[in-house]
Amino acid sequence: MSRTLYDLKTLDGRRLSPFGQRVHLALAHKGLEVDRIVPVRFVDKQVIAFAGSQTVPVLVDGDAIVADSWRIADHLEETYPDRPSLFGGEAGRALARYFNNWCGLWLTPEIASFILFDMLDHLDDDDRAYVRKTREPRFGPLDVLNSSREDRLPAFRRALDPLRLTVKQNGNLHGSAPGMADFVVAAAFHWAEQASSFTLLATDDPLYSWSRRINATSSHGNTA
Amino acid sequence: MSRTLYDLKTLDGRRLSPFGQRVHLALAHKGLEVDRIVPVRFVDKQVIAFAGSQTVPVLVDGDAIVADSWRIADHLEETYPDRPSLFGGEAGRALARYFNNWCGLWLTPEIASFILFDMLDHLDDDDRAYVRKTREPRFGPLDVLNSSREDRLPAFRRALDPLRLTVKQNGNLHGSAPGMADFVVAAAFHWAEQASSFTLLATDDPLYSWSRRINATSSHGNTA
Repeated sequence: MSRTLYDLKTLDGRRLSPFGQRVHLALAHKGLEVDRIVPVRFVDKQVIAFAGSQTVPVLVDGDAIVADSWRIADHLEETYPDRPSLFGGEAGRALARYFNNWCGLWLTPEIASFILFDMLDHLDDDDRAYVRKTREPRFGPLDVLNSSREDRLPAFRRALDPLRLTVKQNGNLHGSAPGMADFVVAAAFHWAEQASSFTLLATDDPLYSWSRRINATSSHGNTA
Repeated sequence: MSRTLYDLKTLDGRRLSPFGQRVHLALAHKGLEVDRIVPVRFVDKQVIAFAGSQTVPVLVDGDAIVADSWRIADHLEETYPDRPSLFGGEAGRALARYFNNWCGLWLTPEIASFILFDMLDHLDDDDRAYVRKTREPRFGPLDVLNSSREDRLPAFRRALDPLRLTVKQNGNLHGSAPGMADFVVAAAFHWAEQASSFTLLATDDPLYSWSRRINATSSHGNTA
């Protein structure tokens, strides 16, 4: 059975979709290989139109076509129940969904505010224009946004205190071993590392070592 | 086997400890009765000194003496495994701990900023002085804090968006039935309702009906 992942295309092979990165981590956790990765630019909507989606990731898993990282995780959990679980049961799945929502509504846009400007360097002209056009209505001019990032950093790091404390107590969000909640959240930090050299997490932050540890579980963790 | 709960004493029987309320909800979920509730003022540290704790709740469950709402939940789950689960497995327990931390570090102090001043009306003179003395170094004068609450309300409600979306999707945080994650978070809203008539959640907010529904599961949900 062949498995194809449509993921964001970048100039230098860096992984610049936090949502694509979640799928890489989930597949690695399940021990599932991808036969083919199809790089898709932001502007190449027609390439993934067959999946009824405007955005990567899209996973074609045998006959199944699944878009959206959360739905892909659900698909993998249902299709490969004998592989290591992503959720650890129904309560684990329900609670992991909170982190999916927290990332969508807060963490991902917050991290974007620190690294989007640098991320432009890894995109071609069409995708650069696309990112500016779609993000600047929310964030304002990206260069202006970028100029305030050092000032905004302490508040961002403090807002991670509940996450930090939980990782210190449990080892991961999901427990002594990581699960989908960890992959969802850590993927946002992996994206930041791929997109920018900005030091979002101090190297002595427990979240830094947690994020690094989770990235190491993904065999294609660093393609840059 | 006798079961005694040490909970916060108030002038009018209202439940004014969000941590005590978590235990009421956890006990109700497990279908466990309390034989005796011992009301303890903030200043009555000596009453619970036997438990090695400075604060309620303290549960005496047969021979077991357990302080701290999270440790009490662990105790109930371990001691009564055949009763309905509070966590739904190890992943559910690990992820619920995040909500315990989020409440401790953010939600509880945030709600306190809206209702602490009104809560003073339900405490005797000694406890009023205690609350002012212990909270004002953090919050500033409680009357001044209170005067800005309308202005602070919209940002507070917006910050609940990930919680709101998850409850809309799942029914509860824990899934279609509530679990300890719900009890931990909802108890903070129950506390607000008991302490103050301030409208923290709009009545058409999905979080309002969720909080109400969870309170109804606790047979002693409204003692006021």
